[in-house]
Amino acid sequence: MRYELYYWDGIQGRGEYVRLALEAAGADYVDVARRPGGQKKMMKGLESGTTPSFAPPYLKAGKLMIGQTANILLYLGDKLGLAPKTEAGRLWAHQLQMTISDFVVEIHDVHHPIGSGLYYEDQKPEAKRRAADFLENRVPKFLGYFERVAKANKPGKGRFMVGAKLSHVDTSLFQIVEGLRYAFPNAMAKLEKKAPRVVGVHDAVAALPRIRAYVESPRRIPFNEMGIFRHYPELDSQ
Amino acid sequence: MRYELYYWDGIQGRGEYVRLALEAAGADYVDVARRPGGQKKMMKGLESGTTPSFAPPYLKAGKLMIGQTANILLYLGDKLGLAPKTEAGRLWAHQLQMTISDFVVEIHDVHHPIGSGLYYEDQKPEAKRRAADFLENRVPKFLGYFERVAKANKPGKGRFMVGAKLSHVDTSLFQIVEGLRYAFPNAMAKLEKKAPRVVGVHDAVAALPRIRAYVESPRRIPFNEMGIFRHYPELDSQ
Repeated sequence: MRYELYYWDGIQGRGEYVRLALEAAGADYVDVARRPGGQKKMMKGLESGTTPSFAPPYLKAGKLMIGQTANILLYLGDKLGLAPKTEAGRLWAHQLQMTISDFVVEIHDVHHPIGSGLYYEDQKPEAKRRAADFLENRVPKFLGYFERVAKANKPGKGRFMVGAKLSHVDTSLFQIVEGLRYAFPNAMAKLEKKAPRVVGVHDAVAALPRIRAYVESPRRIPFNEMGIFRHYPELDSQ
Repeated sequence: MRYELYYWDGIQGRGEYVRLALEAAGADYVDVARRPGGQKKMMKGLESGTTPSFAPPYLKAGKLMIGQTANILLYLGDKLGLAPKTEAGRLWAHQLQMTISDFVVEIHDVHHPIGSGLYYEDQKPEAKRRAADFLENRVPKFLGYFERVAKANKPGKGRFMVGAKLSHVDTSLFQIVEGLRYAFPNAMAKLEKKAPRVVGVHDAVAALPRIRAYVESPRRIPFNEMGIFRHYPELDSQ
């Protein structure tokens, strides 16, 4: 099966969680909107078909057209062997993925607390207030939660979040750590010390040959100030 | 099967989407945290077991402990006959439910744009700015999306969002309309005119005998200013 991913060109964004799963599994896929005429195709896809998405990313898999990042990963987890096979295991991995999605919304809203359609420059004072609360309360809460989960998952041996095998939860958590380090280097230097197992999962994913090759390839879009993880020094701790 | 729902007492919140599905199906369930000593039980459940949730609601179903509202509804959709049986249909209903979850986050953040741990009173100017953007851009975008989906779903005949049968998407959309009417009566009076099919789904759910009985019972907690949908007149359109 050749999968078709539809997501904005130029940013990692939410598409990156899908890319990382596809890359980790060595799946065959096309990053449609990064090809000539692809962005137009993507916009058209949002308006057509019987299962249109509210926003990118969405995935075409044969006749299926699937939206919502965590939903795409629920589907791909089964097909690519990146999730447990039992009902309980699948639901648990999906639950963790959805919690990562919640975290991603909060990470985005740090620089866009008033409106996603407004410029950052038009909500800087509010962003500064939100960033302080985010770094003091929310990041420790989320990382602390994932740290507890990693610790409780004995079969994962500090490398996997769910059971004894790589899952889409690990690849997404890798991206969270990478992104937070990019956006908030000062704060993360301190915060990640309290989440050594989360960092362990990050490191295990980073060491996978396929992920290493991907990260070094032009397929990996660099972090930038158009995406979800933005490095605005004024929002980082000083 | 007797389900156990764990969610904060005193507010509808995210627990309400689970309650509505359980009630619509006539399922046997206990609203644990609303019983004496239940809140303590709920907090303990967040810290124990092999699949702890980041936050309520969570559901105990036999040996399973499932968190994340949309994930609970994915599970209950299958068990209670509130979702299509095909892979494509299940994923589609789940995708819509996750889009409703995204909408719920934005509805909440209107009164908490800076931090969920701070009081509304400490972020009133920011909330006012966010509310204006929310009512002008975000509500029309979300309602417009659900309206298009309802229109495209011919078998639903303006009563169901997915196929020709009631699903968890319908019960959740009912709650969205109820809540927006409560929180933003002035704005909704205008906005819902542009989404007649969404209102149609709302009305069809409201007319279900089990939902009618539930809404009139003490099991339904009234809307209030502790929950997600809050009526602050200064945030509504004037």
